[in-house]
Amino acid sequence: MPCFDAPRVGYLPAGASDRITDVPGVAVGHATLSRGEVQTGVTVIRPHGGDEFLCKVPAAATVINGFGKSIGLVQVQELGVLETPIALTNTFAVGEVATAQFRQAVANHPQIGRDWPTVNPLVFECNDGYLNDIQAFAVSAGDYHGACRAAAADFEQGAVGAGRGMSCFSMKGGIGSASRLAATAGGDYVMGALVLANFGCLPNLMVKGQALGRLIGNDRRISRFDAPAAEPEKGSIIIVLATNAPLDARQLRRVSRRAAAGLARLGSVYGHGSGDISLAFTTAYQVPASADGPAPIVALLHESLIDPLFEAAAEATEQAIVHALWAAATVAGRGGRRRLAITEALPQWRDFF
Amino acid sequence: MPCFDAPRVGYLPAGASDRITDVPGVAVGHATLSRGEVQTGVTVIRPHGGDEFLCKVPAAATVINGFGKSIGLVQVQELGVLETPIALTNTFAVGEVATAQFRQAVANHPQIGRDWPTVNPLVFECNDGYLNDIQAFAVSAGDYHGACRAAAADFEQGAVGAGRGMSCFSMKGGIGSASRLAATAGGDYVMGALVLANFGCLPNLMVKGQALGRLIGNDRRISRFDAPAAEPEKGSIIIVLATNAPLDARQLRRVSRRAAAGLARLGSVYGHGSGDISLAFTTAYQVPASADGPAPIVALLHESLIDPLFEAAAEATEQAIVHALWAAATVAGRGGRRRLAITEALPQWRDFF
Amino acid sequence: MPCFDAPRVGYLPAGASDRITDVPGVAVGHATLSRGEVQTGVTVIRPHGGDEFLCKVPAAATVINGFGKSIGLVQVQELGVLETPIALTNTFAVGEVATAQFRQAVANHPQIGRDWPTVNPLVFECNDGYLNDIQAFAVSAGDYHGACRAAAADFEQGAVGAGRGMSCFSMKGGIGSASRLAATAGGDYVMGALVLANFGCLPNLMVKGQALGRLIGNDRRISRFDAPAAEPEKGSIIIVLATNAPLDARQLRRVSRRAAAGLARLGSVYGHGSGDISLAFTTAYQVPASADGPAPIVALLHESLIDPLFEAAAEATEQAIVHALWAAATVAGRGGRRRLAITEALPQWRDFF
Amino acid sequence: MPCFDAPRVGYLPAGASDRITDVPGVAVGHATLSRGEVQTGVTVIRPHGGDEFLCKVPAAATVINGFGKSIGLVQVQELGVLETPIALTNTFAVGEVATAQFRQAVANHPQIGRDWPTVNPLVFECNDGYLNDIQAFAVSAGDYHGACRAAAADFEQGAVGAGRGMSCFSMKGGIGSASRLAATAGGDYVMGALVLANFGCLPNLMVKGQALGRLIGNDRRISRFDAPAAEPEKGSIIIVLATNAPLDARQLRRVSRRAAAGLARLGSVYGHGSGDISLAFTTAYQVPASADGPAPIVALLHESLIDPLFEAAAEATEQAIVHALWAAATVAGRGGRRRLAITEALPQWRDFF
Repeated sequence: MPCFDAPRVGYLPAGASDRITDVPGVAVGHATLSRGEVQTGVTVIRPHGGDEFLCKVPAAATVINGFGKSIGLVQVQELGVLETPIALTNTFAVGEVATAQFRQAVANHPQIGRDWPTVNPLVFECNDGYLNDIQAFAVSAGDYHGACRAAAADFEQGAVGAGRGMSCFSMKGGIGSASRLAATAGGDYVMGALVLANFGCLPNLMVKGQALGRLIGNDRRISRFDAPAAEPEKGSIIIVLATNAPLDARQLRRVSRRAAAGLARLGSVYGHGSGDISLAFTTAYQVPASADGPAPIVALLHESLIDPLFEAAAEATEQAIVHALWAAATVAGRGGRRRLAITEALPQWRDFF
Repeated sequence: MPCFDAPRVGYLPAGASDRITDVPGVAVGHATLSRGEVQTGVTVIRPHGGDEFLCKVPAAATVINGFGKSIGLVQVQELGVLETPIALTNTFAVGEVATAQFRQAVANHPQIGRDWPTVNPLVFECNDGYLNDIQAFAVSAGDYHGACRAAAADFEQGAVGAGRGMSCFSMKGGIGSASRLAATAGGDYVMGALVLANFGCLPNLMVKGQALGRLIGNDRRISRFDAPAAEPEKGSIIIVLATNAPLDARQLRRVSRRAAAGLARLGSVYGHGSGDISLAFTTAYQVPASADGPAPIVALLHESLIDPLFEAAAEATEQAIVHALWAAATVAGRGGRRRLAITEALPQWRDFF
Repeated sequence: MPCFDAPRVGYLPAGASDRITDVPGVAVGHATLSRGEVQTGVTVIRPHGGDEFLCKVPAAATVINGFGKSIGLVQVQELGVLETPIALTNTFAVGEVATAQFRQAVANHPQIGRDWPTVNPLVFECNDGYLNDIQAFAVSAGDYHGACRAAAADFEQGAVGAGRGMSCFSMKGGIGSASRLAATAGGDYVMGALVLANFGCLPNLMVKGQALGRLIGNDRRISRFDAPAAEPEKGSIIIVLATNAPLDARQLRRVSRRAAAGLARLGSVYGHGSGDISLAFTTAYQVPASADGPAPIVALLHESLIDPLFEAAAEATEQAIVHALWAAATVAGRGGRRRLAITEALPQWRDFF
Repeated sequence: MPCFDAPRVGYLPAGASDRITDVPGVAVGHATLSRGEVQTGVTVIRPHGGDEFLCKVPAAATVINGFGKSIGLVQVQELGVLETPIALTNTFAVGEVATAQFRQAVANHPQIGRDWPTVNPLVFECNDGYLNDIQAFAVSAGDYHGACRAAAADFEQGAVGAGRGMSCFSMKGGIGSASRLAATAGGDYVMGALVLANFGCLPNLMVKGQALGRLIGNDRRISRFDAPAAEPEKGSIIIVLATNAPLDARQLRRVSRRAAAGLARLGSVYGHGSGDISLAFTTAYQVPASADGPAPIVALLHESLIDPLFEAAAEATEQAIVHALWAAATVAGRGGRRRLAITEALPQWRDFF
């Protein structure tokens, strides 16, 4: 269970730590940059402890709203596998981190780009330019490597890693995670979610049906500076779903689409300027890079049993966003701008639940 | 305003009648079949009062979950226009109604399929087999024509037309409609929604954040027969959005995707067996069938101003589903099966809002 | 080998009969309507000899150009399986044949639409209105059932079944089929193709790099009536690919996309008014309708070994179109219109190859 | 007309220079790196002479085969506009060039990522690792800027810019361009193509129906080293189409899909390992970044008149690939590897046409 207090959404049981790393083998690491006007970072999700290029995991994605600059989705959609760690960072750092992924794969496998095909980087982004001096291009390859090295089952949420400078409903956003257990007639599985939450207009914020955004927006004790209600949305959300259920890429695409339901429960309508992308992967089996070895022999979950995973995907997404908001501390950054933690803007939040 | 009482969702102002026909020119008609085990029908939406084939309206669709048997989407997605009335009916009637649309277009224009191209039928469906003897194949071409003739700005909601036999969250569902006004910096527009609501598992039903489904499911006064909580979802929802905003097909596709947000607010996770499809069209301009006349000269809404239409699309969808539930009367049908009106299952519903 | 002479395209070896039915278990049947102005029909492809609803075959489709009125693609794309025979017919008969498929499935399984989900019909179409009095709506449910009953490994090509009234490059088109053997490092497989060829502008017709269309178009002995070179394209092509390679739906989608390469080799640019759709299925394994039994345990072909199947898909498509042209006899129909067999328009065709 | 001799494909008239820059306003520039083992570069296409961010051009793309690492497509598909120059380079340089585009846009508009939204980079790539030491990561931001500065209506083809190290059908590939004039009933327009050609297995190479690949492959005078016929395909092709026809993004997507037909005419089946992507844009009108000014008032080309543009797109693509092959000089690079110019491998090529 998380080391912070937050509203509990939904009905399904959570995993042991209510984080994406409840899916066995999944690890998360952060590199956080917090020095004055630079408030940004990198977060990495590793699907397993092995070599992602040699042992690819099945994956698929949904572009809920395509105002986004991610790299890697074209190939994931075509081939249905990941072959690098999943990296999250700020918009302007996508190129730097993609280059770091190219170099990392080549360092591990000098055949890449020569005797072997090239590697597909996978970098997602949100624009943290409100708090972070994004024009400083502060994220370096070293930060990506640092996040990879830090990857572990235990990891922090809130204003850390790629989430350091992110805003959500004009409050402080960032990294949030959750997990749900899905009992299907074909077996019990874990569904984990990790979000980089940087979306939303304050008046739209709903939590468990409570219009908290309007409460905060109408609170005269909160200055317009801290909660500029009429701010146009320039955010985004990246949602990564992990499961140990035996699904193929087509089924994972279906799972990834359910993130949109969880997102909508918070009040989002997938705003024009918001790059809302979800990706789902499974750890149930791996696809070897080489055709020389044996192919994985998989008995997929029967399609008619998939609904509990859809429920879990939506609910884990919803909970992960709530965690991103409640785990976040107030952060000040570029030009003295500040994003309040929701727990600070609404210290009486427990009264509503 | 509707002639029934129902919870009011969201924040945007509704149009004069809170129905899709608040978009000027749009008309809706029903043919309702209610005779013993046959509880089904046809609903038609006409985008304008003219000839849909000669004056095509821009349109686009989103397949939220593709467990559906609609006809016509392939061409709508390619060409970005409608060229017939939009028909809704039960699953097994899609063929009959599509044939009726072919014949209707040929009757109006004997050149179709000869000197002119063929016409693209557009028929959406949900499975009303719980209440309706769907295997009776009761819907006829005459019912489609009847619904076309009945099309008007004033129309009923609830257990009428295609909605006659539909179920929603194990309650009585059917036809619902709503409208919202969207004030954009480029002008004020109407966004109307009409849904054929036949989806949902009872425990998931949320209205304005209230878990009404669990309340009803736990109510011992309601027999298991009337609210079988564990029923697997075999439903669907069709969502039609109409607007008078000047949008092109790409923008309408974006609008249609926001229906998924409104749907999620009711608790849906787009269940595996639910064919959830939304279609959006505009009445702002028409595309002539023939290249002989002048092309429409259109100044589209600037993309950066589109968010109020997204909000309106989500909210009108949410409200239309609520209307489908609250407008519906209890209906009995096949084998004595019955679907309770939510207002009957939960007569004290006003206490929650 | 076919019982007609035709140019041989490509380099890969053909199967024993150079038809789609070289894929073991696949069967094809026709119902041909030829009476005066009515020149049309139905063709059915059955993926295996069993019950398509109980034992679904993996499948996927590509819409090369979406000017088409098919029914069934939405669900195939979502769930990745077929659950009925594949039916081909004329545009205006889609509704009738879809209804026949609904009734057929219900007759076989009265639970459908009641205790079980509904069935997804799958009907493809082209517009044969040049030769056929399409406005006569001549195709009946009985024709569909007749084609199902006639389904066999041995079947005719040319102006038969759904191909009876079709035109191709202003010549007589119709049904064509071919097969190719694909030797992959993971095993040897058959790739079969069946086309309903009703596309193309005469001047674009290329066969093995020879501009036959221009030759024919310039031939003064051929009347303008028989080869109206400037005719606008109102055609379409449906391409069905079958294989026994162990592929999943994602891989089959990739295979289906290669039909576009074979089609382009004939000179097509996927004209605006042409509904060009390809569908690929595999017989390597089946997906049971019920989750009660064991899931299929499949070792899929490794992605890096798939190229020979892509080559085979393109080449089988190309050859099938050539067969459609060369197998066709001259047919006269509506209003005395006539489509010449290419072997009649160009009796000296062997000189070019 | 190009300053090199090459087979002329198709039937449509070419523009004055038979290059993409026949579309008024379009400019192309190269930065070529050729020093020992480093044989690579950058090519830039500028849609107009103004500021691409302020004056966006309508655009759309088709992923023919998604084995590719491009950045920028997600947003192009969503919003239907370009907002940077189009950059082509080697796979491992995508990150560097994307970063250069971010920095370039920020330098021009310091509001980007702060008061304004971020900018969408658009970088396409092929793997030139056969000839180029791709692991040297030799391309720098300066090369991108150099290519931008060099952009002009007059530009070279062959082993230049991003094409420096590319291979095509195991011959020397690279940059090729062509143009075709499309006479529609709605006006006469230019369709230009530019390709980065790095695809194909030698035996598949067809030019105007002549199996040149097999001729070359069987030529004993050509060493196995220069033409390794059995080489697995690890290539790609990027196809950029430009037109001055008044089309919207939906229509441009249709145009971009026709590049696949031109590509197939050369013998490609869109091999598994080939990232085949096409993008089409129009210069007919621009979409202003700001909603403050007037919206563009556009009369789009009527859909039924679009076929000549489809023909032109396919033919310009085909010709551009031919130009890439015939313009290329033999290049030696990494580890002494060499790619022969086709004009050197087949000096008697004129005999075949």
